[in-house]
Amino acid sequence: MIDFKEYINKRREAVDQYLREYFSKKFQPEILYNSITYSLFAGGKRLRPLLAIASYEACGGEYSHILPQASAIELIHTYSLIHDDLPAMDDDDLRRGKPTNHKVFGEAIAILAGDALLTEAFVMFLKSEYFSADALVKACRVLADAAGARGMVGGQAEDILSEGKEPDPDTLFFIHTHKTGALISASVRISPILSNAPQSIYDSLTIYGEKIGLAFQIVDDILDVTGDEEKLGKKTGADKKKKKMTYPALYGIERSRAAANELIKEALAAINMLDERAEPLRAIAEYIIKRVE
Amino acid sequence: MIDFKEYINKRREAVDQYLREYFSKKFQPEILYNSITYSLFAGGKRLRPLLAIASYEACGGEYSHILPQASAIELIHTYSLIHDDLPAMDDDDLRRGKPTNHKVFGEAIAILAGDALLTEAFVMFLKSEYFSADALVKACRVLADAAGARGMVGGQAEDILSEGKEPDPDTLFFIHTHKTGALISASVRISPILSNAPQSIYDSLTIYGEKIGLAFQIVDDILDVTGDEEKLGKKTGADKKKKKMTYPALYGIERSRAAANELIKEALAAINMLDERAEPLRAIAEYIIKRVE
Repeated sequence: MIDFKEYINKRREAVDQYLREYFSKKFQPEILYNSITYSLFAGGKRLRPLLAIASYEACGGEYSHILPQASAIELIHTYSLIHDDLPAMDDDDLRRGKPTNHKVFGEAIAILAGDALLTEAFVMFLKSEYFSADALVKACRVLADAAGARGMVGGQAEDILSEGKEPDPDTLFFIHTHKTGALISASVRISPILSNAPQSIYDSLTIYGEKIGLAFQIVDDILDVTGDEEKLGKKTGADKKKKKMTYPALYGIERSRAAANELIKEALAAINMLDERAEPLRAIAEYIIKRVE
Repeated sequence: MIDFKEYINKRREAVDQYLREYFSKKFQPEILYNSITYSLFAGGKRLRPLLAIASYEACGGEYSHILPQASAIELIHTYSLIHDDLPAMDDDDLRRGKPTNHKVFGEAIAILAGDALLTEAFVMFLKSEYFSADALVKACRVLADAAGARGMVGGQAEDILSEGKEPDPDTLFFIHTHKTGALISASVRISPILSNAPQSIYDSLTIYGEKIGLAFQIVDDILDVTGDEEKLGKKTGADKKKKKMTYPALYGIERSRAAANELIKEALAAINMLDERAEPLRAIAEYIIKRVE
C-alpha cells in the first residue's frame, strides 16, 4: 500500500514547482502577470494534474516526464474558474477563500488573464523531451476537444442557460458530464496516449475518467448543500440561490450520495485489471467520495 | 503578374468553404453554436488565413494543404474580436456593420463563444494529412505564443491600461506590435515551418510579417480618423473618444502614413529574393498601404 497523503503531497509539490518555475519570469504588462499568477497560485488542489500523473504512472511512466502536460491542464482549469466567476457568468466574489480575480484586477484584466492562461496551456503542453510529436499532437487534440464547445465550454454555457429552469435529468447529465466531467476525463486519457499504452488500457482509463468526473461534480453539488464554508473556501448554498440545476435539487442528498458512490465503484471496477501502479488512481477515486461520507 | 483580386477571392472562398464545412454540424447548446458562427461568418476579410496561405505558396506549397491551419488562425482572430468588444473591454456595439456578439447573445455567451473559438483553433490546427507531427507542434507553439500573454493578449491588456494616458512611443510600439502585429506575423511564420523551408526563408518571412503587422495597425489607426464609416462597417473616431494610444494621436496623420509606407517598403525588401510565387505576399503588402493612399 502506498502512503496516499505523502504521494499526493509530493506530486502536488512537483506540479507547483513546475508552474512556479514556468512563471518565474515576469512579463509586460505586470498587472496581467499578477492576475495570472494570483489565480494560478491561489491554493488549488491540482486534482486534474494529479489525475494525469497518476494515470501516467499507472501506465508505467515516470511522473516527472508528464509534468508540463499535467500542469497545462491546470492552466485550462484555472482559466475556466476565472471566467466562470465573472459578473456576466456566475458572479462570484470568493474563490478558495480569496476574492475572485475580477474583484482584485477588474473585469477586463480577468477576462484577458483567462484568455492568456488558456492559450499558454498549449504552449506548455506542446513541448517535451520524452514524448513523440505524434503522441503530443494526439493527446493535445483530446485535451482541446474536451475543453472546448463540445466539452467544458458547452457545459458551462448550458449551466448558465439552465439557471432557474425546472431541473430535468438529461440537461443535468449534459451539464455535469461536460462542464466538469470532460476535462477530468481528458486528464486521465492523455496519459495512455502519451505512453503509447494498448487500446484496452486507454478504454479502461476512459471509463474510469468519465465515472470519477461525474462523481466529482455530484460531490461538489452535495458539498454546496452540506459542506463546511471554511473548509471549502467559498459560501455554501450558492447553487440554490442561483437556481442551478444540481443533483441534490433533482434527486435529494441521499440519492445523490448513492449515485456518486455507485460511480466511484464503477470507476474502480473499470481499472480492476491494472496492477499496483494504479493504486494512486484508486486512492484518488476513494478520496473524492470520502469528501461526502 | 497574377490577378490579385481573383487570387484573393479564390483563396478567401476556400477558407470560408473550409470553415463552413467544419462548423456544418450544430452542437448543444444551440445558442453557443449560433454565437460562434454569427461572428465567424460576419464578413471578415480573412487577412490572417490569406497571409498564411500566401506565405505557404511562396514556400512552394499547395494552398489547399494549409487550409486547416490557416483557418485556425481566423478562429483565434475572431475570438479576440468578440472579447475585445465586451463592455468590460472596448465596449463596442458594432462590428463589420452588425451588432457585436454580446449585443445579440448576451455577455455570458459571448465570453464562452470566444473561449470556444480559441480552444477549437487548436483542435483544428493539430490535424493534417500533409504535415509531420513535428512541424505541426513547432508551428502550433509559434502561433500559441503569439496569441498569448507575451503576444496578442499582452498587447490588448496594455491597450486597455493605456487608455487616457499620455501617449509615449515605447508603449505605443508595444501595443501595436503585440495586439495586432504578433498574430499577423505568426500567420506568415507558420508556413515556412510547416513546409520545412530553409532558415533564411523563415527569417525573411519573419521580417516581412513583423513589418506588415505593424503597418496594418497604423493603417487601422489612420482609418479610424479619416475612413469611411460605411466602408469600414464601424464608427470612426472611436479611438479618440476612448483616448486610445494611436499613431495619429502621437505623430499626426502625415507622419503615420509615412511610417506605414516605410514599413511596407521594408516588408517588400525583406522578401525581395523570393521568386514569383511570392507575388501574392507582395500584393497583400501593397493592398494594406493602398487603404490609406
